[in-house]
Amino acid sequence: MGIGPGGEDDLTRRAARAISEADLLVGYTTYLQLVQKMSCYHGQEMYTTGMTHEVDRVKYAAEAARRGLKVAVVSSGDAGVYGMAGLVLEVLEATGQVAQLEIIPGIPAANTAAALLGAPLMQDYATISLSDLLTPLPDILKRVEAAAAADFVIVLYNPRSNSRRDPWEQAVAVLKKHRQPNTPVGMVNKAGRAGESVKLTFLEQLDEHEPDMLTTVIVGNSRTRVKSGRMITPRGYLL
Amino acid sequence: MGIGPGGEDDLTRRAARAISEADLLVGYTTYLQLVQKMSCYHGQEMYTTGMTHEVDRVKYAAEAARRGLKVAVVSSGDAGVYGMAGLVLEVLEATGQVAQLEIIPGIPAANTAAALLGAPLMQDYATISLSDLLTPLPDILKRVEAAAAADFVIVLYNPRSNSRRDPWEQAVAVLKKHRQPNTPVGMVNKAGRAGESVKLTFLEQLDEHEPDMLTTVIVGNSRTRVKSGRMITPRGYLL
Repeated sequence: MGIGPGGEDDLTRRAARAISEADLLVGYTTYLQLVQKMSCYHGQEMYTTGMTHEVDRVKYAAEAARRGLKVAVVSSGDAGVYGMAGLVLEVLEATGQVAQLEIIPGIPAANTAAALLGAPLMQDYATISLSDLLTPLPDILKRVEAAAAADFVIVLYNPRSNSRRDPWEQAVAVLKKHRQPNTPVGMVNKAGRAGESVKLTFLEQLDEHEPDMLTTVIVGNSRTRVKSGRMITPRGYLL
Repeated sequence: MGIGPGGEDDLTRRAARAISEADLLVGYTTYLQLVQKMSCYHGQEMYTTGMTHEVDRVKYAAEAARRGLKVAVVSSGDAGVYGMAGLVLEVLEATGQVAQLEIIPGIPAANTAAALLGAPLMQDYATISLSDLLTPLPDILKRVEAAAAADFVIVLYNPRSNSRRDPWEQAVAVLKKHRQPNTPVGMVNKAGRAGESVKLTFLEQLDEHEPDMLTTVIVGNSRTRVKSGRMITPRGYLL
């Protein structure tokens, strides 16, 4: 299940009920700390592990479900977008438990960021993760190039970490080949949580910014512009 | 604001509160009929018009807001994805009312469909509308071609209407050039509403299907497969 950006207001009723009815909550530590602040949390058991322990977490969840517990595996944003839904499905497929699975969508990080920035996703867009842990960097850059050349609005997830700056720098270089220097770029961090930051900048100034793994970056297409401090990609209605 | 697929369970708390507190609800007739069934509806005034009257609807909403009313402009899915957010922003920008605007995201149709199908969006994906009312067909097909060649999972919105079959047929032809015949394709109609339909098929059998304007189509990438009746694009974790 996905909880959206992390505040209770952005949870769907279906998600709140799933948390409320669960015997066990499984997830990355940071996300479960957000859940603990919600009114649907009433002391349910938790199994938390840090990043990169995804497989361990999901196997624990599957084992608990086999023992008869109702388990909620919690992702931020939408569980189906770079979240845990795929891994849970694969593990339950292997253990023959798929029939027990319900996947509950949440507001994806891209859509939370877009709403805070304005309306940048009104035309066709491509979602690309710059994390090269599970995807080779050349494949990632090929997608950035294809999306940039075909004038998609581009959403970048996991753009950059302290130890992993190459994908970001190379992706920005590819974008600069295809888009004008004054292309609007929005960057949103910790949407709806303490420390929320919403920045609007331009492709030519991207080098001055240092996004991290929690930043969602939205790069406009050739029609995107900034008006009254909001980023907008007009759909094309005649006013 | 976006209400997600249309049932009250898929509404965020923020969206439910916005409906509840609004003096006036504005939207396409079908969506407001969904809202009327929700517990956050308590007789608020409604202004509904059919499809293609979007500009009229938004100008009416802006005028009502200027008179001091709290107005909720309602889209299904996410208002920021082929919804009303962009048009509302443009109209309010022209009338100097932008500062009063809050954009409330909802679960996008792509993510609702993905959750019902399994986990097809676990790798990079591109969202493309096949409606050529506001975008020239050659531009649409160029994007389908680029996304197909770069191995994006592809989400197609507004795939086909009775009077508009060309974009669908041509898009399918482009997809067949780049993807294997056994590429999984999911089709979801009226998710979470009466008449919900979830179909899993393959690229080679697409000609046997007739999606409509309310169908969300998800075309797998080269790694997407079907297991236990679910569509999955593995993220690449080692199990």
